[in-house]
Amino acid sequence: MMQPYKGVRDFYPEDQRVQRHIFTTMRDVVERFGYEEINASVLEPTELYLAKTSEEIVNDESYTFEDRGGRSVTLRPEMTPTVARMVANRKRELPYPLRWYSLPNLFRYQRPQHGRLREHWQLNADIFGVDGDEADIEIVTIAHTLLREFGASNDDFEIRVSDRRFLDALYDSLSISVSIRKDVTRLLDKKDKQDITTQLAELLDSDEVAKALLSRLDNPDIFPSLQTFVETLRTRGIANAVVDTGITRGFDYYTGVVFEVYDTNRKNTRSIFGGGRYDNLVQQYGNEPVPACGFGMGDVTTRDFLETHDLLPTLPSSAMLYIAPATHNNTESMHSAVTKLREHGLNVAVGMKHTKIADHIKAASKLAIPFFAVWGENEETSQTLTVKNLITGEENTSSVESVADSLR
Amino acid sequence: MMQPYKGVRDFYPEDQRVQRHIFTTMRDVVERFGYEEINASVLEPTELYLAKTSEEIVNDESYTFEDRGGRSVTLRPEMTPTVARMVANRKRELPYPLRWYSLPNLFRYQRPQHGRLREHWQLNADIFGVDGDEADIEIVTIAHTLLREFGASNDDFEIRVSDRRFLDALYDSLSISVSIRKDVTRLLDKKDKQDITTQLAELLDSDEVAKALLSRLDNPDIFPSLQTFVETLRTRGIANAVVDTGITRGFDYYTGVVFEVYDTNRKNTRSIFGGGRYDNLVQQYGNEPVPACGFGMGDVTTRDFLETHDLLPTLPSSAMLYIAPATHNNTESMHSAVTKLREHGLNVAVGMKHTKIADHIKAASKLAIPFFAVWGENEETSQTLTVKNLITGEENTSSVESVADSLR
Repeated sequence: MMQPYKGVRDFYPEDQRVQRHIFTTMRDVVERFGYEEINASVLEPTELYLAKTSEEIVNDESYTFEDRGGRSVTLRPEMTPTVARMVANRKRELPYPLRWYSLPNLFRYQRPQHGRLREHWQLNADIFGVDGDEADIEIVTIAHTLLREFGASNDDFEIRVSDRRFLDALYDSLSISVSIRKDVTRLLDKKDKQDITTQLAELLDSDEVAKALLSRLDNPDIFPSLQTFVETLRTRGIANAVVDTGITRGFDYYTGVVFEVYDTNRKNTRSIFGGGRYDNLVQQYGNEPVPACGFGMGDVTTRDFLETHDLLPTLPSSAMLYIAPATHNNTESMHSAVTKLREHGLNVAVGMKHTKIADHIKAASKLAIPFFAVWGENEETSQTLTVKNLITGEENTSSVESVADSLR
Repeated sequence: MMQPYKGVRDFYPEDQRVQRHIFTTMRDVVERFGYEEINASVLEPTELYLAKTSEEIVNDESYTFEDRGGRSVTLRPEMTPTVARMVANRKRELPYPLRWYSLPNLFRYQRPQHGRLREHWQLNADIFGVDGDEADIEIVTIAHTLLREFGASNDDFEIRVSDRRFLDALYDSLSISVSIRKDVTRLLDKKDKQDITTQLAELLDSDEVAKALLSRLDNPDIFPSLQTFVETLRTRGIANAVVDTGITRGFDYYTGVVFEVYDTNRKNTRSIFGGGRYDNLVQQYGNEPVPACGFGMGDVTTRDFLETHDLLPTLPSSAMLYIAPATHNNTESMHSAVTKLREHGLNVAVGMKHTKIADHIKAASKLAIPFFAVWGENEETSQTLTVKNLITGEENTSSVESVADSLR
């Protein structure tokens, strides 16, 4: 047997149905907010990631190689640089507010483990050209609506909001040098997973400043606009939004509001996804800045969340009816009936290969097709179908046309 | 400005709408025939392509590189080996007839030119486990239905059908050695594009045999079952199917019926897509053979065909309504109305950034959003909306709830 490449997935029909359920829900929600779909190639020139924002990823974790013409290519590890490049390239023609979403696959070379694969898919939704809070509120509202649409209650998750400007104010208040702020922020991002006190003191060259930083991090009063922002979210119906100044987000490009959506399940308290404002990224690929805010929501963590909270519905085959000819003689007249059923919008799989009806029924069940019928001499004469529900065993006989209407 | 990687495409909303129109039509048709969607990663172990069938492609045109662990990886140049691998890996559990489709992106390192890019997308539809003509007929019927569904008439295209067994019979009749048949077939595949007489005579080491081969190739009477096959297609309503024994298809893995769909436009007589029967491929990845038949239909050639025949409809934004607050004071009450509209299934984009109504209207037009409304004090009080059709200029005032129903 030849296995797939390590760390990526094959999607057999049952997995693809889950993926489609997730993607369809995502599309429905973001389109309801006026977001339009875009796409790009997984192949990007490596230079796209050589801006300081992603250097670490490209050096340590990216799939980067030379093409046959000697050009360095990278399989995109995240979508935001691609989207920023596309906005920069048409900055002057594009209409604002510009609302874009995409459902790209992303690649990281890392040791495959639960919830961390080498390829995953991610909804990306971004709004460009608006620098006020309104855009940030919309982005957080979409994040909230998405999980509600998947069936989660407000108790199942929490939206933790902070602001990179809060961090800057905090760094200012403690006279922390600009040159080390990036490293400090990256370290703070890890503080929920490990004890960072010693490392932080080393980086800041002072136990006292480290202690002060960690304690003031828990005191959002020094940045009142963050409180106001979360209050607005609450008046817009997002009851589970909270200020959490410990939220920093990994990427360096964030410049304002940042947020992470956390699962509240005690066995699984972890970030599901997040995003924030990044006003300077587009400028790196063009000549002018374009304010931007957005988030990315991965399929693997989303599926984990839905399974943890038992929110995945039963998903049947896209085929509704399996129909088999009683004998070879009935094949041609069956095909006329099937054509009619399909013209009425019914998805019909035709039985082939088997000769015994029992084997056809077995195949239909295994294919997760809910309804079954046989086409023989009687059916030819009367142009009716006896349709069996393979789950309940119930049978119904009606004309070919009405079968399509009743099963769809 | 940073350009995308050479030979691949960015899909801005207007391009993505066309792509979605093509994919949605493809999905609708193949699902009507009971095909279920599957997917896999673009990354495959290079060994997958080292079977003799694709050697040439991997050596000359593939994106092949070493990952950070020293493993050779290839970006899939076609989907069929992946699908065959997936079937082989679960051969005994899978139900037959097994009908699968996918919409993968495929990669070839070639000089980018019109209609030939380094990345393209392709519908793949395959049926497994049936070795009779019924499966081949279904596959050709789907190919035919697809183009009809896109709006093409039978005059716009022609389905040219042949059979690899016809070629074998022909080679037998001329005592052409088995060892050179692959090379002869590959050469015959090029005969519409260039004069192959001299090369063929050299390969066969005989002017006479070459001449006899080319003349008998035009005489399908020596293989009557091919005529019967095409007659069955015609009784099933495929009026534009013809026998064309010149059709060979590029890949070596075909073993039976092969077909190509040709554009009949005189300015553009070219193959749009094709497929055929490949009964031995699954066995290469597992221990047992599984009969198979399928086709691949690319997005680039499909779009070219649709544009040539003027079959692409106008595709508006997925957002139906652009709504802007009259002043900042109206924002919160507008959001309540917008939430109601969205709950009624309407896709609504909210105006931000601009303060003048004229600028909002300009943005809505540029975004290709068909309807426009302003939310002010009157609207707050009466809970009604005056919606303007930006194409006709027509205006209609009604309650918030009924707006959603009338625009959807």
